[in-house]
Amino acid sequence: MILIDYPEKSQWQELLKRPVMNTESLFGTVQGIIDRVKAGGDEAVLQYEMQFDKVSLSALAVSSEEFDEAENLIDEELKAAIRLAAGNISAFHAAQRFVGKKVETQPGVTCWQKAVPIEKVGLYIPGGTAPLFSTVLMLAVPACIAGCREIVLCTPPGKDGKVHPAVLFAARVAGVQRVFKAGGVQAIAAMAYGTESIPKVYKIFGPGNQYVTAAKQLVSLRDVAIDMPAGPSEVEVLADVTANPVFVAADLLSQAEHGVDSQAVLITTSKELQQAVKDEVERQLDLLPRKEIAARSLANSKLIVVKDMEEAVEMTNAYAPEHLIVETENYMAVAEQIVNAGSVFLGTLTPESAGDYASGTNHTLPTNGYAKAYSGVSLDSFIRKMTFQEIKPEGLCKIGPAIEVMAANESLDGHKNAVSVRLDAVRRDK
Amino acid sequence: MILIDYPEKSQWQELLKRPVMNTESLFGTVQGIIDRVKAGGDEAVLQYEMQFDKVSLSALAVSSEEFDEAENLIDEELKAAIRLAAGNISAFHAAQRFVGKKVETQPGVTCWQKAVPIEKVGLYIPGGTAPLFSTVLMLAVPACIAGCREIVLCTPPGKDGKVHPAVLFAARVAGVQRVFKAGGVQAIAAMAYGTESIPKVYKIFGPGNQYVTAAKQLVSLRDVAIDMPAGPSEVEVLADVTANPVFVAADLLSQAEHGVDSQAVLITTSKELQQAVKDEVERQLDLLPRKEIAARSLANSKLIVVKDMEEAVEMTNAYAPEHLIVETENYMAVAEQIVNAGSVFLGTLTPESAGDYASGTNHTLPTNGYAKAYSGVSLDSFIRKMTFQEIKPEGLCKIGPAIEVMAANESLDGHKNAVSVRLDAVRRDK
Repeated sequence: MILIDYPEKSQWQELLKRPVMNTESLFGTVQGIIDRVKAGGDEAVLQYEMQFDKVSLSALAVSSEEFDEAENLIDEELKAAIRLAAGNISAFHAAQRFVGKKVETQPGVTCWQKAVPIEKVGLYIPGGTAPLFSTVLMLAVPACIAGCREIVLCTPPGKDGKVHPAVLFAARVAGVQRVFKAGGVQAIAAMAYGTESIPKVYKIFGPGNQYVTAAKQLVSLRDVAIDMPAGPSEVEVLADVTANPVFVAADLLSQAEHGVDSQAVLITTSKELQQAVKDEVERQLDLLPRKEIAARSLANSKLIVVKDMEEAVEMTNAYAPEHLIVETENYMAVAEQIVNAGSVFLGTLTPESAGDYASGTNHTLPTNGYAKAYSGVSLDSFIRKMTFQEIKPEGLCKIGPAIEVMAANESLDGHKNAVSVRLDAVRRDK
Repeated sequence: MILIDYPEKSQWQELLKRPVMNTESLFGTVQGIIDRVKAGGDEAVLQYEMQFDKVSLSALAVSSEEFDEAENLIDEELKAAIRLAAGNISAFHAAQRFVGKKVETQPGVTCWQKAVPIEKVGLYIPGGTAPLFSTVLMLAVPACIAGCREIVLCTPPGKDGKVHPAVLFAARVAGVQRVFKAGGVQAIAAMAYGTESIPKVYKIFGPGNQYVTAAKQLVSLRDVAIDMPAGPSEVEVLADVTANPVFVAADLLSQAEHGVDSQAVLITTSKELQQAVKDEVERQLDLLPRKEIAARSLANSKLIVVKDMEEAVEMTNAYAPEHLIVETENYMAVAEQIVNAGSVFLGTLTPESAGDYASGTNHTLPTNGYAKAYSGVSLDSFIRKMTFQEIKPEGLCKIGPAIEVMAANESLDGHKNAVSVRLDAVRRDK
């Protein structure tokens, strides 16, 4: 860990810099795989599953027998936990339903928005050592609440050709039936263009390694929407002297264990806390199974002391962390001043883990400073807002002449004429 | 115009195909310009203004004297029209303000969303023959309502080194003070990375030619968000035998005059209307100043007759038009079934022009079928929704054990531990 005391503002930018992601350098390779899947369909996906996931599959779709089998393999404690989490995620996202109101901008001119679900969405769940069934819930629950008609989930199978049972169980709890054994670039390409087995979707969600990210970026240039650009996960703890160093250390470690490029930052007004957290991190690190990963990530982790809470808030907004834990006195007042963060955890009893799993908020959040421009995944991510308008004779008389003037001044006489022919008719009718 | 009668469903995809946009082929050239601006700042922008816009500028920023001068150059009729439009756009977008509600997902677990403005946004307004002051209103009014702290507008100057006065007047009416004389790729690059004069922003909005689109795509891969992918503008009129062919023809022509690649499509249940619209388009075309552009666009325009309203709606949802005008009996019932469109105009007196200029809805909308996955620009485009959560002892006891189970099953013991240390403390306090 790197201890930094009272840095000058001129140093902030350098201090808060993330590791550079360069997915563009992968574009050539990744586009090649995408093109092969686009042309070859299932056969190409099966071949890449052999090549990359080292598994020979007879079919891509997970059968209902496999779903049943998975349910039998999961113990009741985990099932109950998944159900509890799904219930909370459902409660929070259902409360986000949008109901548009009609606005009469002028008498006889009525405009409104209406939320409609994206009809077809694709969810990507990475494989690897840890089965991310929590991410299944975070994507599938809001997709179901939004009312998406077709929800497709792709995830790489293990070497035994099976999808991890917890992933299947979470999919079923959330309400997703169509799960396919496909990972990496080939999965993204399959959902973007469709294959014999895997339906084409309109928007693709979910985390992944840099190849998956590159694939999402490439298909989003023209053919399909994506949730957001992805980068390594990150947490900032904003704490004062009242914070509990045991909790803060645990929070930093929970981020550090994600991967060697994870970012864990402490910004504090207390030199004393900084030292206590450092000692405590070292103590707790030793107890973690993933301590090697965490240690490598922590090597770049910064514990920064600043002069007061105002500066701490300013630095936080400049950093724009994916996750922000505020462990200070009057944390509500501090939270009011935060404008750049993905998800904010308030008080001593609100660890990031709560939002990662079970409190109800979404854990798919903007990393890499993207919180300055992007929101995390929410119900909004699965809908579109269409606008509608209806104009009555009175309204046309009110705004028609202004439209004619503006259109003429933009040299768009056809636009003007579409109003003029109607105004003529309305005036004739009078 | 191409008349198509009762096409088979198998033909729809081919029939509704848009011209392929291939911005990727421009990426090399465009990236070169971006890199030069990133490295050279103002000097590079000035040089490109000389090269591409054929203008030698002494400064990029529009001065307050130039704003004043512009105001004096605009006649009162246009000023009044712009003010009326701004008022309606403001009324509609102000009604979109988001107020999050707190949700107690479990006793002691409270989660909520909060809308915060994107602090710095950049608006791009293309130059060319027609000054798009209406687009200034469509982007700047919601940016101001959202509360964006820094709003930057770039637009190419004329050969006299001046920005069109109507663009400056609209910017001032909307509340934008920082306007810069920069067009094309250099403008997008300047807003993405900042120059001495032009501030770096977090999200870039606005239409443009294929070079501008390519530039927005490239900077969005890593450095800045963009509003949405852009393509040629398009309208569909969905009409039955009750529609007025004069109005329908005027609507198709208002789209066709935009550019040679604009799409104007009629889907109707009436063979009679199809013929009447064809005749009427030919008659009205002759009266338009931009008839050459419109005629070239209309050469690809399709007037399609289908067997009934159900099929008309299905074809419309498959096409997902940017603009949809519904001129039918019971248009409200028809509108209820539309799920893929950017903006919908209902009834005989609601031309697309109304939404293009002055009814209050936004005219920055998803083209190219993107309406299946994207919304048009709205107040949402200028905000982010951050999530917050606060957990009390009761809540931690309720969800903590589930988090521990889930984290352990994802092999993330650090995540588990962040809860365990807190649960221990809560249990000790009891």
